[in-house]
Amino acid sequence: MLPRGRPRALGAAALLLLLLLIGFLLFRGDLDYERPRPRGTAAFDGDPPADPGGRNGSDCTPPRPRPPKCELLQVAIVCAGHNSSRDVITLVKSMLFYRKNPLHLHLVTDAVARNILETLFHTWMVPAVRISFYNADELKPQVSWIPNKHYSGLYGLMKLVLPSALPPDLARVIVLDTDVTFASNIAELWALFAHFSDKQVIGLVENQSDWYLGNLWRNHRPWPALGRGFNTGVILLRLDRLRRAGWEQMWKLTATRELLTLPATSLADQDIFNAIIKEHPWLVRPLPCVWNVQLSDHTLAERCYSEASDLKVNGAGGPSGGDGPRMGTPAPCSHPPRRCPPWSQVIHWNSPKKLRVKNKHVESFRNLYLTFLEYDGNLLRRELFGCPRPPPPGAEQLQRALAQLDEEDACFEFRRQQLTVHRVHITFLPHKPPPPQPHDVTLVAQLSMDRLQMLEALCRHWPGPMSLALYLTDAEAQQFLRFVETSVVLSARQDVAYHVVYREGPLYPINQLRNVALAQALTPYVFLSDIDFLPAYSLYDYLRASIKQLELGSGRKAALVVPAFETLHYRFSFPSSKAELLALLDAGSLHTFRYHEWPRGHAPTDYARWREAQAPYHVQWAADYEPYVVVPRDCPRYDPRFVGFGWNKVAHVVELDAQEYELLVLPEAFIIHLPHAPSLDISRFRSSPTYRDCLQALKDEFHQDLSRHYGAAALKYLTALQQPRGPT
Amino acid sequence: MLPRGRPRALGAAALLLLLLLIGFLLFRGDLDYERPRPRGTAAFDGDPPADPGGRNGSDCTPPRPRPPKCELLQVAIVCAGHNSSRDVITLVKSMLFYRKNPLHLHLVTDAVARNILETLFHTWMVPAVRISFYNADELKPQVSWIPNKHYSGLYGLMKLVLPSALPPDLARVIVLDTDVTFASNIAELWALFAHFSDKQVIGLVENQSDWYLGNLWRNHRPWPALGRGFNTGVILLRLDRLRRAGWEQMWKLTATRELLTLPATSLADQDIFNAIIKEHPWLVRPLPCVWNVQLSDHTLAERCYSEASDLKVNGAGGPSGGDGPRMGTPAPCSHPPRRCPPWSQVIHWNSPKKLRVKNKHVESFRNLYLTFLEYDGNLLRRELFGCPRPPPPGAEQLQRALAQLDEEDACFEFRRQQLTVHRVHITFLPHKPPPPQPHDVTLVAQLSMDRLQMLEALCRHWPGPMSLALYLTDAEAQQFLRFVETSVVLSARQDVAYHVVYREGPLYPINQLRNVALAQALTPYVFLSDIDFLPAYSLYDYLRASIKQLELGSGRKAALVVPAFETLHYRFSFPSSKAELLALLDAGSLHTFRYHEWPRGHAPTDYARWREAQAPYHVQWAADYEPYVVVPRDCPRYDPRFVGFGWNKVAHVVELDAQEYELLVLPEAFIIHLPHAPSLDISRFRSSPTYRDCLQALKDEFHQDLSRHYGAAALKYLTALQQPRGPT
Repeated sequence: MLPRGRPRALGAAALLLLLLLIGFLLFRGDLDYERPRPRGTAAFDGDPPADPGGRNGSDCTPPRPRPPKCELLQVAIVCAGHNSSRDVITLVKSMLFYRKNPLHLHLVTDAVARNILETLFHTWMVPAVRISFYNADELKPQVSWIPNKHYSGLYGLMKLVLPSALPPDLARVIVLDTDVTFASNIAELWALFAHFSDKQVIGLVENQSDWYLGNLWRNHRPWPALGRGFNTGVILLRLDRLRRAGWEQMWKLTATRELLTLPATSLADQDIFNAIIKEHPWLVRPLPCVWNVQLSDHTLAERCYSEASDLKVNGAGGPSGGDGPRMGTPAPCSHPPRRCPPWSQVIHWNSPKKLRVKNKHVESFRNLYLTFLEYDGNLLRRELFGCPRPPPPGAEQLQRALAQLDEEDACFEFRRQQLTVHRVHITFLPHKPPPPQPHDVTLVAQLSMDRLQMLEALCRHWPGPMSLALYLTDAEAQQFLRFVETSVVLSARQDVAYHVVYREGPLYPINQLRNVALAQALTPYVFLSDIDFLPAYSLYDYLRASIKQLELGSGRKAALVVPAFETLHYRFSFPSSKAELLALLDAGSLHTFRYHEWPRGHAPTDYARWREAQAPYHVQWAADYEPYVVVPRDCPRYDPRFVGFGWNKVAHVVELDAQEYELLVLPEAFIIHLPHAPSLDISRFRSSPTYRDCLQALKDEFHQDLSRHYGAAALKYLTALQQPRGPT
Repeated sequence: MLPRGRPRALGAAALLLLLLLIGFLLFRGDLDYERPRPRGTAAFDGDPPADPGGRNGSDCTPPRPRPPKCELLQVAIVCAGHNSSRDVITLVKSMLFYRKNPLHLHLVTDAVARNILETLFHTWMVPAVRISFYNADELKPQVSWIPNKHYSGLYGLMKLVLPSALPPDLARVIVLDTDVTFASNIAELWALFAHFSDKQVIGLVENQSDWYLGNLWRNHRPWPALGRGFNTGVILLRLDRLRRAGWEQMWKLTATRELLTLPATSLADQDIFNAIIKEHPWLVRPLPCVWNVQLSDHTLAERCYSEASDLKVNGAGGPSGGDGPRMGTPAPCSHPPRRCPPWSQVIHWNSPKKLRVKNKHVESFRNLYLTFLEYDGNLLRRELFGCPRPPPPGAEQLQRALAQLDEEDACFEFRRQQLTVHRVHITFLPHKPPPPQPHDVTLVAQLSMDRLQMLEALCRHWPGPMSLALYLTDAEAQQFLRFVETSVVLSARQDVAYHVVYREGPLYPINQLRNVALAQALTPYVFLSDIDFLPAYSLYDYLRASIKQLELGSGRKAALVVPAFETLHYRFSFPSSKAELLALLDAGSLHTFRYHEWPRGHAPTDYARWREAQAPYHVQWAADYEPYVVVPRDCPRYDPRFVGFGWNKVAHVVELDAQEYELLVLPEAFIIHLPHAPSLDISRFRSSPTYRDCLQALKDEFHQDLSRHYGAAALKYLTALQQPRGPT
């Protein structure tokens, strides 16, 4: 049991201070005379020998603890919702950029964040990074009794329960808020564990705002804290010791007691951590301020990152007298006559204003943040030399497949693109799944940056749910984010799910993109469209009515064909009915889709019959048919071997036919293709002779697989292929 | 005079080795017992105290010398031509990313590189970076007598003359090849100067290829070298000592003597450096291999970056016995049983294959390189906290102007965009200026990524010189590079100059882009076009003939109007003559430009008269006239206050008229605008009411400036503005 009450605590603190001082001098002396030790004989229960920073104090450089070579570093982050998931990824990018050690990330997440981050890390395939998930919702009851006014809500309190939530054999962990950015190797932070005394269990940086001084406004009554208190955006936790010390009971008692006189926490877990530390000051190991540079308005952060080089400086790593609470602080920066390490190691955007915080140097810190926000995450898939770790799941198989490719093969680029595992960030923006309805349809499409301007029109034409895959670089994803935020039309829609697939390789992975969007559709039916088409205004309602009327819900395997048209005019007024459409068609302002270049693609739809049709009618598959269809969500996936342009949709319709989907054309449905300049990809490859050869090779392989799968039934597709054909 | 010949050199080396060993032990002992010293009492002629790496040898981490706080670091790079200039920028980005010190870059350049890099650094405005240029062509005579087979050519030899070429008071400098990438703070490399003994003058990393062993092929006869020799991609030069030691005479003597028996240098300066070191081994300070990881095929680099952690390790910083030539090598990596620092600090792409080099870990190194290749250079405009330096030229003025902006002003974004100084990389790709011709015309235009597909068509329509400004991110600039490289049409053209203006801010700085392209046009006349227009196939020839015929060369101030048309059809066949154009116009397939939305813009061209015209005819300026014109290169610049869309060209034509340019319409000239989807910028701002208000405010300010400039003569423009007008 730990001593209780203020007088006893102060007495204990004084004693501890004395012990620490003695211990420090001994330790310091020992270090100063020590010779390099052989591996494994380090001083502190398994820690590597560390430089507590006493020796190099003459210039204002950080003590640079030696990062433990190849040691697995443990990091815990609490994350909930779409926006925090994006933040975590930026944090992780900054961590991965500088790291040289294998990492194990412990992510305490709600269902939304788990879904996003699980997909992301699975597809990211970063070597030497292990991920474990913990269900935040299960932990909620342990903290939900605490009234909390902080913007982070219930999740903000969850760091308190980490000692019990994380695996019992996990002895130490670095806990990070989602709004921090690394500017150096996390191993240097980890190495500070070696500075903990036997009693210390929590490593924290002093708070850089005046919050806990209690003088911010009249009747401002913060929770109790030692001096300025500590900030919990970056925590070093000795989980083993916390468990042994009865942490759970400890924090609950403290919180309960304080809540007798205080109405709620204002700063979530941080208030409770500080109240505990005030009571048991020997628990805390103060960390150098550079490990949590807190960029709020009104912060002392500047004292931390701007150095006071003209000042006489104490050797750090030990007490420097006069400020009892901060025993052993290596480099607190609130009091200038101290050594201040000159560069920030971790930036903490802990104001609710985040990047818009007022700080005269914020531009420089923002640049660092933007560096990682826009950093190509694919570049972090780099091996750790000299630290052998099991490869990420699937990586070995992928390596083998890639190694088998022949660089001299003319189709090398195609085959490599097919094998590329793209990083996928599903539901990049906040998204509310539609309430389940038995006949609901999601519009499924994919696009890249050059089609962004289609989104607003699409939203106006399709009031229902959409699942869209976007093929973007990390920097483009941020442009996209700003685009949606500044669009009144787009930001009003919560039923459009945007899934970012990160660019890699020269060919547009069209079918992989379609499959991502398709997999994320949440309604029983999907309308498989393309981004350059605008649907009839009535299409969403009409499709749902048709699905109901045709009783597709009863397991009937059908693909509803939505006839496609095109305009070659750049400015045109969209027909509000089938009658108007037919009038435009007759006037030559509209054409059936690809009428001039490739009529085979849609000929089986039978436009002549459609003109007159009053009811859905059956059509038969024919070679090269590529209609736009509505199908149940569990339809076959697109064949990812077709990358770039050509045959990507044709193959899917073959697959539907092979699986005996009925093809039913809807008499009132239509979509219209708008003109656009050819994409770079298409112009690059249309002119290439190898492109056509490779496409042929892929088609042949597709047919071989088809025969293997469907046997004799697949023969008709091969036969159809032998007939003379035009361009694809 | 330095001793000559092998036996004496070996004897001296052995003696030096012994002295070093003794010195090392003494030094080491001293350090181990030393307390932090006050500033300014460092051991080595002004060097900050450095950790020679002896203490932390028990784990395989680099010795991390303390970077000298705020010391100005000197770096020299030889750079010639367009491609090397791009390389230097990537190198500098990697250096700036990690640096914490002010830098002085000494760039030895040819005229092309100087032109590019001077513009770049002037517009980059990175704080605490000073640039000096040195004329490589003037240095040529000093090395041109040396026959050299290396791909770097004459410039590859220029590192030899740096001691005399650089300012006489410059005492030490880091010399870098253009093909290196930093992976850490250059101050740590600089700190290695402190490890130099009194005799050492050149810090080098051992060569990691077998080249100098002379066994690569039969009769392979490399230049003489100590053991494996040293690589000169990264050099620490004590210029002061080199000058005192009579460096110039020394290397010239050595080179002359070796060239008696060897036909030429194979590896440029590196052969000569190695020959000198072989002769005077005490001159060299071997550096840890991590400071120059040489990624050729067949290289020992892997031994350097992969660590041998299971090996018993010597304390580094001193000799480890047995290999005389490498005295004092802190961490040579060619012999495994040594301490190998585990992370690479500088990557050297020293194979002619560059990134395509065969190395099983090349992917990871390539990722690092790509990181900086695609890194947004604007983010490096960050201050060095705590190292006060004079700001870059113009920066203070800019800061003041920015500070005066009112964030609450609705036009804040416009005004900030106007003030933005964009980084400019002129002639991003190899470019041959056209031979001077008195009537030659350069097509001037600007574009962003979404118009790249126009370039091939434009090249087909305009066989003359072009000066194009591209508004791109750093990553897009690389995509653009690949786009040009893979295009047969574009890569065949050397008379098209591409100037990259790096993106910053939300509004398209259209007139700044036009001014960049205009300033770089090298012919006496310019055709001020827009990227969405295709010129008549005959236009280039016709314009030159017209200029000659109209005798514009004799100082006549005229703007030749090229009538503009548009097609709304996405696919159309370009008219090969005026007659064909008129037929299409009559058939309704073509229109005069913006006929439907904004006929005022081109009405003064008088299309009716043009139909019939056989000779150039005069037209008068009228409000909102914005024709496409051919003018002398010294025409007025575009007004950079007009950003985004609207009035940017109108204002320029007002300026032409105010300066009394004749407006002459050419009867056979025409350009046709192709349809395209609206750019993101235009759609974002067309819908914004503040956009129109701001544009109005800018126009008012433009007219005020006009009155100030031209007095009463400008009154007509204001009067014209008062008339009722349509949209702009």
